[in-house]
This record gives sequence, C-alpha cells and structure tokens, in this order.
Amino acid sequence: MPTPSTSALPGAAAVLADATRQAMPVATGLFEAIAEATNDGVGMAREPYSANEQKASDLLEAKARELALHVDKDVFGNLYMTLPGRDRDAPGWITGSHIDSVPSGGNFDGLAGVVAGLTAIAALQAAGIVPATDITVMGVRAEEASAWYAGAHGGHIGSRSALGILPPAELDSAINTRSGRTLREHMAEAGFSPDRVELGKGTLDLARHRGWLELHIEQGPVLERLGLPVGVVTAIRGSARARSSRCLGAYTHSGAVPHEYRSDAVLATVELVHSLEQEAARLRAAGGDLTYTVGKLFTDAGLHSITKVPGQVDFCLEYRSQERAVLDHMIDRARTEAARIAGERRVAFDLGSFSPQDPATMDPGFRAALNRGAVELGIPVMDIPSGAGHDAQDFVHAGLPAAMIFVRNANGSHNAKEAMDYADFELGTRLLAWMMMQ
Amino acid sequence: MPTPSTSALPGAAAVLADATRQAMPVATGLFEAIAEATNDGVGMAREPYSANEQKASDLLEAKARELALHVDKDVFGNLYMTLPGRDRDAPGWITGSHIDSVPSGGNFDGLAGVVAGLTAIAALQAAGIVPATDITVMGVRAEEASAWYAGAHGGHIGSRSALGILPPAELDSAINTRSGRTLREHMAEAGFSPDRVELGKGTLDLARHRGWLELHIEQGPVLERLGLPVGVVTAIRGSARARSSRCLGAYTHSGAVPHEYRSDAVLATVELVHSLEQEAARLRAAGGDLTYTVGKLFTDAGLHSITKVPGQVDFCLEYRSQERAVLDHMIDRARTEAARIAGERRVAFDLGSFSPQDPATMDPGFRAALNRGAVELGIPVMDIPSGAGHDAQDFVHAGLPAAMIFVRNANGSHNAKEAMDYADFELGTRLLAWMMMQ
Repeated sequence: MPTPSTSALPGAAAVLADATRQAMPVATGLFEAIAEATNDGVGMAREPYSANEQKASDLLEAKARELALHVDKDVFGNLYMTLPGRDRDAPGWITGSHIDSVPSGGNFDGLAGVVAGLTAIAALQAAGIVPATDITVMGVRAEEASAWYAGAHGGHIGSRSALGILPPAELDSAINTRSGRTLREHMAEAGFSPDRVELGKGTLDLARHRGWLELHIEQGPVLERLGLPVGVVTAIRGSARARSSRCLGAYTHSGAVPHEYRSDAVLATVELVHSLEQEAARLRAAGGDLTYTVGKLFTDAGLHSITKVPGQVDFCLEYRSQERAVLDHMIDRARTEAARIAGERRVAFDLGSFSPQDPATMDPGFRAALNRGAVELGIPVMDIPSGAGHDAQDFVHAGLPAAMIFVRNANGSHNAKEAMDYADFELGTRLLAWMMMQ
Repeated sequence: MPTPSTSALPGAAAVLADATRQAMPVATGLFEAIAEATNDGVGMAREPYSANEQKASDLLEAKARELALHVDKDVFGNLYMTLPGRDRDAPGWITGSHIDSVPSGGNFDGLAGVVAGLTAIAALQAAGIVPATDITVMGVRAEEASAWYAGAHGGHIGSRSALGILPPAELDSAINTRSGRTLREHMAEAGFSPDRVELGKGTLDLARHRGWLELHIEQGPVLERLGLPVGVVTAIRGSARARSSRCLGAYTHSGAVPHEYRSDAVLATVELVHSLEQEAARLRAAGGDLTYTVGKLFTDAGLHSITKVPGQVDFCLEYRSQERAVLDHMIDRARTEAARIAGERRVAFDLGSFSPQDPATMDPGFRAALNRGAVELGIPVMDIPSGAGHDAQDFVHAGLPAAMIFVRNANGSHNAKEAMDYADFELGTRLLAWMMMQ
C-alpha cells in the first residue's frame, strides 16, 4: 500500500506533510548523535541513571534549547521541554517516551517517542503554527529498569516517580544486576532524589495536562507483516504472571516402576501446559484477546536423568490480555486444571501468585481522533493492541487519558537489530503533530 | 498372603527350607561385613575397580574358601566360586550378580545375588546334597559403571568383558566423572587387563554352563504393593533412548508477538510429549508392555525469560518394552509426530538417534521350572518384567539361556534406603537352591 504523495493531499494536510519533512533533520541528527554517544559496541547501553542515559538527555536538552523550548527537570531526572501555546493556562498535551534502553539494545525503543515530540514541534514551528495550548515533550528515565535491576519492582521508574505511583519499597528491593546495589543508591549517585518518592505526590500536576501522547516502535511484527507504516494502539495488555510455579512428583526408576505407581512431574506439567494452551486458543477463536507463554520450564539439572522418572519441574506462566476478565478466567483455569491433574497423577502443583496487572485502555476519543487524522493525512493505519508495557500505561493508571502511535519496526525490540525506517517515523511524527493541533 | 510354615511342606521341600534357614548366617554375615567395609557414611560406595569393590570381593572370596569352594578370578576382576557336582564335565549352573554399587547406594542391589549363590550352596551343603553338575557363583565387577562413568558406554563392564561382547572402544570413551580418567586406566590401575578386551573372546566358556541364574532385588514397587515376596522375571525390557533431543523455535517478545507469528519451542515440545504419552497409554491399554519417560526437559537457563517466547527446548525420550516391535513403533511415532508438529508450529525438531536395545527374554523352560519350584516350596510368586537392566541380559545376548528371581524391596533402588527383608531373601534363596538341584 504506497503512501500517497503529499501533493495529492488537501491544503492543511499538505502543509503539515511538508513541514514534517523539513523538520526531519532534527530527528536524524538526534538519533545519530545519541547512537554515537551511547552505544556499547553491540547496541545501545543507556542504563537507567548512568552516564550514557544522562548524555542522551543532555543531547535532547540541547536540541530543545536550539528550538527555543522551555526546559525543566524533576528530582527524578525526567526532562520536560515545552512549546508555549496561545493559552498558557489551559491544560496542554504531554508527549514523549523513555530515554533509556535495554543492554545492547536498539536506538529507537523509547528514544523515538522523545525525538518525535521534538520533531513534531519543529514541524509546527516550520509551518508557522502556534498551538492552542502548551505542548510538553517528556524524556522519561529508567523505563527499562527491569532489564537492569533484579528483585521486586515493576520497572517504569521515571514515569511512576513523576506520577507519584511508585511504591517506595521498590527503591530498595530493585537490585542492580551488575553492581549489586539498590536502585535508591544508583538514583542518588546520579544526582537525583529517591527520598522524594516517599512523599507519594509525584512531580507532575495532571490538571495541567489534557492527555499523554506516546509514539513508539512496534515491538512485534504485525505492522511489518501487514505492510502498514503506523498503528493506533487500542490498549496496553494487562498481564498475569506466575513467576515460580512448581510441580512436585517423585523421582523413581524409569524402567522398574509401572506408570500407575509413578508421580511424573514432567508428564503432569505437560498436561497442564497443553490444556491451558487449548483453552487459550478457544478464547482467541471466540474473539478474546490473549497471549499465553511458558517462557521457562525445566527439570532439575542436578537430579534429572534419562533413566529417572522426573520428580520436579519448575516453570512459569504468563498471560497477557486487553481484558481483565480474560486474565481472571485463565488464572482460574490454571488453578482448576492443576488441581484436577494433581489428583489424577499423584503430584502436587504450587503455582504461586499470578499478580495480575490491569490492562490500560487508550482513550476512545483520542483513538478516534488519530484515526480521523490518519485519513486526513493519507497515512495507512490499523488498530493494534500493545503487548509490551509502556509509560503510557502509568499515565492511564494515574488517571490521565492517553493515546499511542506505533511505528513499523523489523526484527523485534530489545535487541540491537531493531530496524525502523525513517520514512515510517516521519509518517508517525506527522500524525503526532496533527494530534497536537487538535 | 502369609507364607506357609515349613512344617506344612512335603518332605524334600521341608528339608530345603530348613537347610536354607540354617545357611542364613552366611548371608547376614556377608551383608553386614561388606556394608561395614564399603559404606561412605550415607550408603554403599563400591565403585567399579575401587578399593571398596575389591574389599567386597575379598570378603566373598574368604567366605567361599570357608565353604570349601574352588575359587578362580579372571583378568577383568570377576570372581568365580565353584561347588563341584557329581559330573564335573557336564555343563553346570552359573549364578550370581554384581558386587559394585551406585554412589551412596543400597547394600542389596547386586550383592544380594552373589550372596544368595553362596547361601544356596551352603544350604545344599547343610542338607548333604551334592548337585548333579558344578555350580559356579560369579561375583561380577562394574555392572553399575553408568553411575560412575560418563561418555559413551553401556555399563555392565564385568559381565560383557567376561562374555567377550564389550566393544573395546568403550574402555576409552567411558570417563570417570570424579577423576576424569578413562575406564581403561582405572581397570589397569586396579591390577586387571583391559587390553584383553581387545581380543573379543571373553573368559567364560559358555559350553561349560547350562544357564545363568540371577537373584536380584526388585527395583520397582510391584511386589511390595501386591504383597508378594518373590517374582519370576519374564524378560528384561529393551530400551530406545533419544538422549539429546532438541526443539528449535525463535525467541521473541511474549506480549508483542501474536501466536500466529510465534515459533514456540515449549508449546511444540509439550504437544509432542503429550501426544506420545497418549499413544503409549493406548498401547498399554491394548496389552502392550511399555514405559515412557521424559526424564529431562529444559529451556535454556541463559536465554529463557518469563517475558520471552521460548526459542529452544532440550529433552530426552526413553521407551522400555519387553517387545522390540513396541519400541520400533514408538520410535516411528516420535518421528512422525515431530514432523507434523514442526510443520504446524514453525519449529524444528532434532530427535537424534534412539539406539534401540533388544529386550532379553528369560528362558521359558527355566521360568516354568521356577514357577513349579515355587509351588512345591510353598512360596507365593508372580511373573514380573524387569524394567531395569541386569547382567542376565548380557548372558542372553551372548547366547546363554537365563532366569532371574526378584526379591521384594521397599524404597526403590540406587539409593541408600533400599530395604529388603531377610525373610524375603531367604525365600528367594530357597527357590534358587531348588533350581540348582534341577
């Protein structure tokens, strides 16, 4: 599906298309300068609260000053770059994404959203447009904390700190996997104020914002497979995760013990995993939204043997869905099936807690507007759920309506091979700029 | 089912019962002396070609000399203790089992068969019976080599050496897991002649023997669960083992990638394992003999994650059956199902080789005789397959007919908790002595 040339667009759309094209050097310059400053030889290494994350923030700040934006920072390291609107008192848009990356990650996961905000502003400036209200671009810290910190925490440190929804205990339970030290120590060492998290108030005044807009690369293959450059996100899937489930049977001789006397942990776990897969497929076939993943499943390397009936299996279960009811149904199903199979197969299952997290639905009005804008701008789009988590979900959970624009990306994310075409980024940014004018 | 008192038995049976009871101190004395000399604090540690295995052999030899038996040893360390019969030229019985144990093993796995041979001879002597032909008790070395040596080898070193069926390459490919040195080195260091294996002739002249008789503890729970002290073995199950099977999929994001684009190695392997279990159950329900075990199954600890679709699973498959056709059917089934599932789920299976080993059927005439003897002696018995391997299978594969007597045992085997009641051992030994008189 070729993108229509801008010359075929109606007047206002053509103006915005030309202005975004003129602003693209802002984007390419930032992507290249930040990639050069923060790579580890394999990919990007913008660890939360590291010198590299700071370098990226500094380069963004410098560009914002070039664009004559108002620059502000909060005590958690987040960066705010504001284009004043005609009515400075009215609630304005806040847009952006995160600055940090996973280890040896790609350049676009997160950064594209901050760069898109600045580029869209540069486009508005190029078109001579002063928006009705303020537009703030936020560079968020430490969204990828889960890739760098073990222990109990939920990642998304920068956004949750700013929104006042980060439980302070996570500052101490999140342990850096390289240094062994806490998130609190690293945050303080970088010059910020973890103690301010204790106040539970955050630094953002939500009353000053009408909504959060986040452009992000798609981390799955859907847009690429379907040949579409841009997606409008419907919801960020919630999840239910049993991180440390276990099946206990009994180790016995694989030749000498008849099946009716065995307590085989592998065959019992296999039946559970297979049964849940069938239920998940049934729900999807009926129109439900659900992913089902068993990312880890293993017998005990110290005790297992080809000639022993396996006595223990450790595994995890993950569900993701846009519908909380689907998550709850699958949690129930896991418990019911585990109980049935345990009885039939003389084993014990301990699934542990599923810690369900609610889906974050994108604002229906914003979604409708983005779809209208795409038609007006001649950008082919589709509705798409987000399976991965994003800062946008924290804004929704804190009570601010949000929308997300996905940009086509090859080779997945969280690796150095992620590949976003600048032409696709330009279309996503044009849609973002259009939305900022609404 | 109470054992009838010997006073209710007919004359000859009552004589044998009394004589076996009189001979029992031979057994208890040997079990206790060898346990004291060769334990590692947890259980028995009679490593092949170790000082402890030699100590056990020496204690058996000393008892044989007390019983005035002819003692011989071969160049592989096997011990032969012979009671001369009336016709010294006629082929005689050879009986026994192995002297060695697994690490921290029980005292009876193996040793019970050697001790039973000596005790049965002592019973014949107590009853004043000189057998028609020679009776040789063999103390076999290194049957449990698989528990001590990694690398490519098939265990049962002593019996296969003596029978001339040990491939010499195993002497170098079997690597001691503690020392890192080869079986050849350990065997030579213990004073034996591994180089003689190269001749491929063995040391036993099968023409001098009419059959192999082996008493062994049952390594499964069947006799205990059914309340029977003794079993007559029908066959030693053959096996087919895929030791290093693998399913390759692709690691991807567990939330962002829809199921139709995944190559999920866990769900594919789970379907294969579950499907083969169903086929195995179907075969058993139709009267087939089959055990099916997946003793190892694991995702890659370095790469797996609760939020990643798993890209690799390593596993093994083991079938055991008294029928070679059942093994062949299940090997075919694994390959067919793996191909089907690979196509449907976008993964690749590499099952590797199954290296099938033929079942070893016990001699029908010997089995019938043992069942007759049990009736005559008033010993409750049942027919039972052996799921575990035994020296008896090597004699069968070398062309000598064989029979096995199982003795009830609690807590399985290959662990320090194996528990054989001396009263059950006495019944098994009485049946062995009866068989030696046939």
